[in-house]
Amino acid sequence: MRDVAIIGVGETPFGELWERSFRDLGIEAGLKAIQDAKIGSDDIDAVYIGNMSAGKFIDQEHVAALVADYAGLADRHLPTVRVEGGGACGALALFQARLAIASGMYDIVVVGGAEKMTDVGDVQAAEILAGTADQEWESVFGATFAGLYAMMARRHMHEYGTRREHLAAVAVKNHKNGSLNPNAQFQREITMETVLQAPWVAEPLGLFDCAPLSDGAAAVVLCAMERARSFTDAPIRILGSGQASDFLALHDRRSLTAMDATTEAGARALKQAKLAPKDVQVAEVHDNFTITEILAIEDLGFVEKGKGGPATLDGVTALNGKVSVNPSGGLKARGQPVGATGVAQAVEIVRQLRGEAGKRQVVGAKHGLTHTLGGTGATAVVHIFGRAD
Amino acid sequence: MRDVAIIGVGETPFGELWERSFRDLGIEAGLKAIQDAKIGSDDIDAVYIGNMSAGKFIDQEHVAALVADYAGLADRHLPTVRVEGGGACGALALFQARLAIASGMYDIVVVGGAEKMTDVGDVQAAEILAGTADQEWESVFGATFAGLYAMMARRHMHEYGTRREHLAAVAVKNHKNGSLNPNAQFQREITMETVLQAPWVAEPLGLFDCAPLSDGAAAVVLCAMERARSFTDAPIRILGSGQASDFLALHDRRSLTAMDATTEAGARALKQAKLAPKDVQVAEVHDNFTITEILAIEDLGFVEKGKGGPATLDGVTALNGKVSVNPSGGLKARGQPVGATGVAQAVEIVRQLRGEAGKRQVVGAKHGLTHTLGGTGATAVVHIFGRAD
Repeated sequence: MRDVAIIGVGETPFGELWERSFRDLGIEAGLKAIQDAKIGSDDIDAVYIGNMSAGKFIDQEHVAALVADYAGLADRHLPTVRVEGGGACGALALFQARLAIASGMYDIVVVGGAEKMTDVGDVQAAEILAGTADQEWESVFGATFAGLYAMMARRHMHEYGTRREHLAAVAVKNHKNGSLNPNAQFQREITMETVLQAPWVAEPLGLFDCAPLSDGAAAVVLCAMERARSFTDAPIRILGSGQASDFLALHDRRSLTAMDATTEAGARALKQAKLAPKDVQVAEVHDNFTITEILAIEDLGFVEKGKGGPATLDGVTALNGKVSVNPSGGLKARGQPVGATGVAQAVEIVRQLRGEAGKRQVVGAKHGLTHTLGGTGATAVVHIFGRAD
Repeated sequence: MRDVAIIGVGETPFGELWERSFRDLGIEAGLKAIQDAKIGSDDIDAVYIGNMSAGKFIDQEHVAALVADYAGLADRHLPTVRVEGGGACGALALFQARLAIASGMYDIVVVGGAEKMTDVGDVQAAEILAGTADQEWESVFGATFAGLYAMMARRHMHEYGTRREHLAAVAVKNHKNGSLNPNAQFQREITMETVLQAPWVAEPLGLFDCAPLSDGAAAVVLCAMERARSFTDAPIRILGSGQASDFLALHDRRSLTAMDATTEAGARALKQAKLAPKDVQVAEVHDNFTITEILAIEDLGFVEKGKGGPATLDGVTALNGKVSVNPSGGLKARGQPVGATGVAQAVEIVRQLRGEAGKRQVVGAKHGLTHTLGGTGATAVVHIFGRAD
């Protein structure tokens, strides 16, 4: 496999962007990444797009061709493809694009992730999200993501003594990080009290245990390592990528308190990168709910199983803690335009490894990790990045 | 790039399969392909699924994890991914899976394509299909696929003197081929008169100028060439693959009577295969409407631009004509479960190159080609296959 590096990154602000369409967002992120990479449109060999449900959110499938078209690339007739695997779609697009370059088919690929979620009402959006769970055995009976993740949280409390304060500590940390990110949807700190006193969404998850619905896009430019230094002095290498699946329905899984897909994807990525969890200083992990980040840091091996809550409350995962988790603010505070998530995570890690993360810079970050989930954990994708020094 | 071969194929019957769900269809096709390849489930490294709109047809996204799960593979935690680019999604899944093996990441990948279209009404299905055109400039104003392709047909008549009999000849030929295919949705011949006297769908396209809505699935097993002969004596090599995009909206394109994406994708695939159109004996091309096949055989270089209609009427593309086009019956007669199309085309070409196509066998077929479109031609994918003798 040929080595692949990221040579450019870009993202839109995340939020309720009423005045911007899906195509506007995709183009903005893409152009920022291209400018950051200092490439011209003639250098691009292909476009990969991660998107979960544009068909349902905006009645538009075929969004990869759409984005290339509206970016002014139509008369180059580039190969374009959309990749989907629930909420992991952005990370999957990055995964496939990496393999395409590794194969020798392309040298330079733009990978975008985008979702426009606020053109539909909140209830409809919840139903659309539930379309990535098992429709015949979960969604059709009214199961929502909040309800399914609430069961994981309750079981984690039962098995490991996790308390609501532990869950809340995730939200408090990520809002604090988000306050340092000018593109985040929520750029204000919140207190433990705010989280604990918020109304229930699905007990034991309150309003501030849940990531928002968002509009936004992110993009990265991938380049064969052998050509990367002709564009940048600081290419960020993709050291390892791992992907894994699991039973689609939560009730079919081995455990409610461990995501085997995360464990497998993490192990595969770390093996390929020849690294251990302790070698990672900064990680962007899936935190659509507070419990999800706790499961992720346990299943990725950053902390012992069952200790994710206390570790978070103790600051182990705080900015410049033992491992800085979600310095961008994560899905919770940066926002959750689903298709953009996996790509936005890579954008953040690249900025951290370049030392360009401003007030939220993780000091001495050498290796960064991204982790994204589809559904309630039926897909997990992990990428590991490092400076190509 | 490592060479990649197809070592197993399978498909369900295509049709209005009321008694079978999406997951049933996906599993049936996958298991048939696995059995044909004589591999065990432990041999599989990854699963790629082509699907256009399960989110809208059956309220289920995340279908790659779903299919792996219901196929009994969940506890192997395989990488699974869904690929989409309108109607080209099956061919795109094959494209990405080929690159993944070529990169060295995987050795054996199952590629499936599936669509379950008949759980919604015909009008809703037409709206869902129109979601692969440009939503903001076409679909929202009521443009349907039949209407958009009718404009191409009308313009082709104007520019090249194509007549309704020329269009009808495509339907007559493909129904004749379909009558020889036990998995086809329509296994009966039709006459020129039947086509010409059918009610209009969108003038000049009548009922028999349009492919049906269908349920169905197809699957192939891809294998690194270096391992293929340990499973089969007749691996079918992927000699070349080309993919191209174009403006999403029909009115933005250079021409209504030539699809530049097809021309580009075809040229790229032929160049990679080091072949010319004359070297191809059998082709499965996109014929969602009769005009589409005429455009395809012209843009792929099988016949001169403008001569597609007369060539079809003259039998140039008939079974064992100069080039046998759509021996399976094509989308018109085999059926059109959209996500399955690109994979089913590969299944047919593999059977033809193996000499296992029964009554519809193309004599002496050495090289076969598949061609699939997304939207009204904003995505085109071409694969070229040959026996690895």
